[in-house]
Amino acid sequence: MKLQLSTWPEVEAYLKTSTAILIPIGSTEQHGPTGFVGTDALCPEILAGGVAEQTGALIAPTVSVGMAQHHLGFAGSMTLRPSTLIAVLQDWINSLARHGFDRFYFLNGHGGNIATVSAAFSEVYAQASLGAAPSNRPALSCRLRNWWDAPEVQTLAKQLFGGSDGQHATASEISLTYYGYPEAAKRAEKGAAEMSPRVAPSGGFTDATDYRRKFPDGRMGSDPTLASVENGRQLYDTAVRALSADWLSFANGR
Amino acid sequence: MKLQLSTWPEVEAYLKTSTAILIPIGSTEQHGPTGFVGTDALCPEILAGGVAEQTGALIAPTVSVGMAQHHLGFAGSMTLRPSTLIAVLQDWINSLARHGFDRFYFLNGHGGNIATVSAAFSEVYAQASLGAAPSNRPALSCRLRNWWDAPEVQTLAKQLFGGSDGQHATASEISLTYYGYPEAAKRAEKGAAEMSPRVAPSGGFTDATDYRRKFPDGRMGSDPTLASVENGRQLYDTAVRALSADWLSFANGR
Amino acid sequence: MKLQLSTWPEVEAYLKTSTAILIPIGSTEQHGPTGFVGTDALCPEILAGGVAEQTGALIAPTVSVGMAQHHLGFAGSMTLRPSTLIAVLQDWINSLARHGFDRFYFLNGHGGNIATVSAAFSEVYAQASLGAAPSNRPALSCRLRNWWDAPEVQTLAKQLFGGSDGQHATASEISLTYYGYPEAAKRAEKGAAEMSPRVAPSGGFTDATDYRRKFPDGRMGSDPTLASVENGRQLYDTAVRALSADWLSFANGR
Amino acid sequence: MKLQLSTWPEVEAYLKTSTAILIPIGSTEQHGPTGFVGTDALCPEILAGGVAEQTGALIAPTVSVGMAQHHLGFAGSMTLRPSTLIAVLQDWINSLARHGFDRFYFLNGHGGNIATVSAAFSEVYAQASLGAAPSNRPALSCRLRNWWDAPEVQTLAKQLFGGSDGQHATASEISLTYYGYPEAAKRAEKGAAEMSPRVAPSGGFTDATDYRRKFPDGRMGSDPTLASVENGRQLYDTAVRALSADWLSFANGR
Amino acid sequence: MKLQLSTWPEVEAYLKTSTAILIPIGSTEQHGPTGFVGTDALCPEILAGGVAEQTGALIAPTVSVGMAQHHLGFAGSMTLRPSTLIAVLQDWINSLARHGFDRFYFLNGHGGNIATVSAAFSEVYAQASLGAAPSNRPALSCRLRNWWDAPEVQTLAKQLFGGSDGQHATASEISLTYYGYPEAAKRAEKGAAEMSPRVAPSGGFTDATDYRRKFPDGRMGSDPTLASVENGRQLYDTAVRALSADWLSFANGR
Amino acid sequence: MKLQLSTWPEVEAYLKTSTAILIPIGSTEQHGPTGFVGTDALCPEILAGGVAEQTGALIAPTVSVGMAQHHLGFAGSMTLRPSTLIAVLQDWINSLARHGFDRFYFLNGHGGNIATVSAAFSEVYAQASLGAAPSNRPALSCRLRNWWDAPEVQTLAKQLFGGSDGQHATASEISLTYYGYPEAAKRAEKGAAEMSPRVAPSGGFTDATDYRRKFPDGRMGSDPTLASVENGRQLYDTAVRALSADWLSFANGR
Repeated sequence: MKLQLSTWPEVEAYLKTSTAILIPIGSTEQHGPTGFVGTDALCPEILAGGVAEQTGALIAPTVSVGMAQHHLGFAGSMTLRPSTLIAVLQDWINSLARHGFDRFYFLNGHGGNIATVSAAFSEVYAQASLGAAPSNRPALSCRLRNWWDAPEVQTLAKQLFGGSDGQHATASEISLTYYGYPEAAKRAEKGAAEMSPRVAPSGGFTDATDYRRKFPDGRMGSDPTLASVENGRQLYDTAVRALSADWLSFANGR
Repeated sequence: MKLQLSTWPEVEAYLKTSTAILIPIGSTEQHGPTGFVGTDALCPEILAGGVAEQTGALIAPTVSVGMAQHHLGFAGSMTLRPSTLIAVLQDWINSLARHGFDRFYFLNGHGGNIATVSAAFSEVYAQASLGAAPSNRPALSCRLRNWWDAPEVQTLAKQLFGGSDGQHATASEISLTYYGYPEAAKRAEKGAAEMSPRVAPSGGFTDATDYRRKFPDGRMGSDPTLASVENGRQLYDTAVRALSADWLSFANGR
Repeated sequence: MKLQLSTWPEVEAYLKTSTAILIPIGSTEQHGPTGFVGTDALCPEILAGGVAEQTGALIAPTVSVGMAQHHLGFAGSMTLRPSTLIAVLQDWINSLARHGFDRFYFLNGHGGNIATVSAAFSEVYAQASLGAAPSNRPALSCRLRNWWDAPEVQTLAKQLFGGSDGQHATASEISLTYYGYPEAAKRAEKGAAEMSPRVAPSGGFTDATDYRRKFPDGRMGSDPTLASVENGRQLYDTAVRALSADWLSFANGR
Repeated sequence: MKLQLSTWPEVEAYLKTSTAILIPIGSTEQHGPTGFVGTDALCPEILAGGVAEQTGALIAPTVSVGMAQHHLGFAGSMTLRPSTLIAVLQDWINSLARHGFDRFYFLNGHGGNIATVSAAFSEVYAQASLGAAPSNRPALSCRLRNWWDAPEVQTLAKQLFGGSDGQHATASEISLTYYGYPEAAKRAEKGAAEMSPRVAPSGGFTDATDYRRKFPDGRMGSDPTLASVENGRQLYDTAVRALSADWLSFANGR
Repeated sequence: MKLQLSTWPEVEAYLKTSTAILIPIGSTEQHGPTGFVGTDALCPEILAGGVAEQTGALIAPTVSVGMAQHHLGFAGSMTLRPSTLIAVLQDWINSLARHGFDRFYFLNGHGGNIATVSAAFSEVYAQASLGAAPSNRPALSCRLRNWWDAPEVQTLAKQLFGGSDGQHATASEISLTYYGYPEAAKRAEKGAAEMSPRVAPSGGFTDATDYRRKFPDGRMGSDPTLASVENGRQLYDTAVRALSADWLSFANGR
Repeated sequence: MKLQLSTWPEVEAYLKTSTAILIPIGSTEQHGPTGFVGTDALCPEILAGGVAEQTGALIAPTVSVGMAQHHLGFAGSMTLRPSTLIAVLQDWINSLARHGFDRFYFLNGHGGNIATVSAAFSEVYAQASLGAAPSNRPALSCRLRNWWDAPEVQTLAKQLFGGSDGQHATASEISLTYYGYPEAAKRAEKGAAEMSPRVAPSGGFTDATDYRRKFPDGRMGSDPTLASVENGRQLYDTAVRALSADWLSFANGR
């Protein structure tokens, strides 16, 4: 059940059965010569659809721009400053809490979001801990789950791509988005011609200039030529199963 | 061309032909008993697709949560505080400006956004006016366009709905989203049973409590029973045509 | 009754009769070769005096610096960033609400303020809508009224200046300040010698550099040589009458 | 020369002779049963007029609401939070610096402003010290001067009021405003009937509730029944002389 | 070499040999019945002393209050909101960068800091990535290292405490502070009388109320009765060795 | 009793006897060729130890970085912007208030902090005055005391150093830190070779560039060659006595 495609009486009815909501959160940033700029937002959005089908979860709109300052050296990348993202998540959570939602499950598609989203949770909890939350509000509970966290997903990725899944513009995530957008994939995968070496370098980085110098085509440790719609389908099935179980456990307060 | 479904080399190529980008901006808020909570985000998103087809415009992700504090009395409604929305738009624009974008066309679906988005433009311009913009950055230019602004669209709405289009949860916007999501529409339009009176009251409002007291089912001045997929199709065609012309004029620096 | 010239027991007494307050809000920015830099603050201040005489309204100090980033290319112009102006209005309103004021009538003299002031109202309302307003506080109600809004004023301006009233440094507003400050007017109107063409160009603008390039002497669409003390007197009488009625209606909760 | 009553070409001409500007800064807060709520803003505004006459100083609009949280227990008092006032002064200074002003003389009427205004100066200087000021901007220099600082003024106050001038709602400041607004004074001084004891208590305070408990009619250590128009005239003459000399010294870069 | 005990010419001399600085960062929060409230600040401070002895590292003052909202249910605990901690770290880094420091090694003693400190690094990098860093500033590089990260330290802790080191108020960290403050340790370890069960429960938590309910004496998964000065000495030796190597590698730009 | 070396049950026990806490606050900034960069933090920290011994005061961690933008021209100096320092002090106070502390005694070592710390107190009080403090919270009371304020200390400094104590890098403060860190003093005092003239110049200043130009070795009006461990001991004894009395008076609510 998508919040955006529901009416308010339908949301009110949902709240009688559950006070949990699933919020896909991603990023809009370069994903190498063959990956969509929206990869990290599209992955959790696609998977959230599957989780909703299996569990009836209510799906909020996707936070489509996250913390991706290091990718700004590549055209099309966007970022919120961490302080802005914290303010945004506070407002989203405070808005939904007004209606009685008290369990917030952020399905994340971008490693660069993890620190800031966790900080945002602490900012929200600190309201209560410092006595500054709206009185009469129930305690809130937030979870961040990366879509690739489940052991089954990790195992499948290993099986499909060996040691070449890498850290950014991975065959996994690109497969998943190709599965979701097979037409666009046909166009995007032509970018493979420019990729060299086949497996991109790995390592640390600081700001956007540093990132681009170290990873000239944007990839980190990955070989996205291994990506395919079929691999995406397998990842989808496996991840949806694992995430559905995790969602249900969270939504039921465990 | 959707930014999220493009690769960064494709965005780089686009920038050689145009430095303008179209950003749909909406809201996530109640739209009466039969309207989608996402109506105001879905409308510009749907229309942006049409504009892109006709003009090749590059479409950014949708700003899906806007300024809608007055709707928080109805389940599912979300808001950013104006100060947060200003910070968000600054970051989006500053990110894209880093790549050379200098013309930002916000296609808006929500009246409640107009003031804050305009203030955000001023905040961005003030960076330059106060000498605090990144040096070497070209001057930026922003436009806010409501999808219903064009005279052709106004005329068509009048023709379709007479004087009953209203101010919120209008037959126009609901038709447009029904056209975009006909399956979901079948479910949502059942909510009409609860609507009374047929044309909702009109008037001013302040905060969420005040709004709910004055507009008990969420509608303002509208009769959304007049909404239909077919009406949506006509509105879509008319609006896409008008917006495409306006976009081209803006993108070409006029 | 001016707040600044009242004692606190007098304000306490006023609060027993009314919980509404009138706040003039303007700007400090260039107004062409013959207009005062303070025009937009002086106009609502002058008119507020008239409204107070006729209705007994309590008049707060004037917000004399508003949002005028686009005028910073001309000496003497000042601006608050929109985010600052929002914080200021929150503090003013929250201060006065502490005493029991709950109706805030902003008499505005500057078009550039409208968006930000409206956003500030939403920021204040959002406190309540998100459950973050001080408990025990009554609901607040804010109105922004431009002094030139009333149909009678528009008609008179048309009659006095034909189609040449324009958008900035208008004959209307300059007349009104000349009426208020006839001595200073004698000095200022000498600037007319530099004005050419007689009616300034019109159009859109972005930041301060862009504004100055398009409107080299600061005027937009106006011919301030038509301004006079006598025209100002007529505008004063007409506007005070219209605003007094509007204030009373607002103060009485309608 | 008042900025608000000047045209921009006049300000441009002024800047060729001086890059200093005088900014009256006060507060809007209770001043006991006989003092105007605007006392602390009116005093520097009145005196600034005198300084301008004697020296040709350019006078900015008055910052009429300052930091007065402790007075919020009395009707009509207003405050900016210190963080807001810092933002405001940054914007005022940054705006004026854009035109070439580099010496900012704040003529202060309110003891409660001193700490926050000084902190604001440091915030402005820190921009430069941290390398974050607009490049090409000259170094800025700010001074805060309380109108009662000069030894001559202190001596006169002692002579006029003995040891009973006190700390808040003093005979000095009330005399000065009575001199400025003799008609309003006639009304206000009737409040003396309620004053008891004649000399108010002194001491420290924290928040608004604490202040009101300790100083039930708002005065601190003062006997405003000693205030008079004639005393105000003497204070005016003495203060204008001292402040004019101080202004000239500052404006000339000493 | 401690920054606080150095003169500025000594710091200037240091900068000729290295542009790296080590900043201990911790927290002030409950650490169970026998642990110091300052445990998480004291551990990195103690170890930094050892690293400085072995490598000549320059040691900044300790960030003694971190992000610990979840501990506010226990007396003496303090927190910065994440947004405040981000602002603090920006100012520390921007200050030191002004002198030529460009490598910032944060030696961390508190798990609860990790997310926010990482977000702060991104906020600093984002300045550069968005073109908003002071021009002429070299690229900055930040590292967060938890003192317990090194495999040698983990192995030793396992050896000393088996599976009972736990997550909060661990025998490891308490041993280290007992080693640093043996006198205070004698007093604090008397608190052991109140501890029950011997090994505290484990699990997740949200805000301070939730934390206290789940972990009634403040410990998580730990048995601090195993802490001792001697164990602290061994941990100190091992950790200083490992951290010295890591520091040198970072300081030398690897 | 040091908060950092106490357990939470010990803090809880302390709160049964007193709700006051002493917070040393200083700065990290150049102190001339022979003074420690940490002088202003070390002084209140050293003295707080003495006050705690004599009175049993609970000592919070030291705020070691304060407002010192003007010293950034000298290596090693650090600053918080005033707005950041205000946020920090709010969080410290709000955290401790949660446990029942309601009297906050800031023992200050840095003149540059005074304005901003006072502004921070007002920001905290304003929470209550505007009705935004956590409900159920008792009124808070804050005091800022400079360690050199007591007449006895002033007299002793005069006696020891005559008129040459100066304003920055004073013989007094350097003596006190030499007394606290005699080993480091032996190294630091060698810097005296570079000092010339013996007594540094005095005067006002604005930003860091201006400060360095006027005070080329960092000192203001002082002759730190007069500093010695023995002088420090005398200052310590005298200041601890005076501050202990002041602390007790404050802690007991007078």
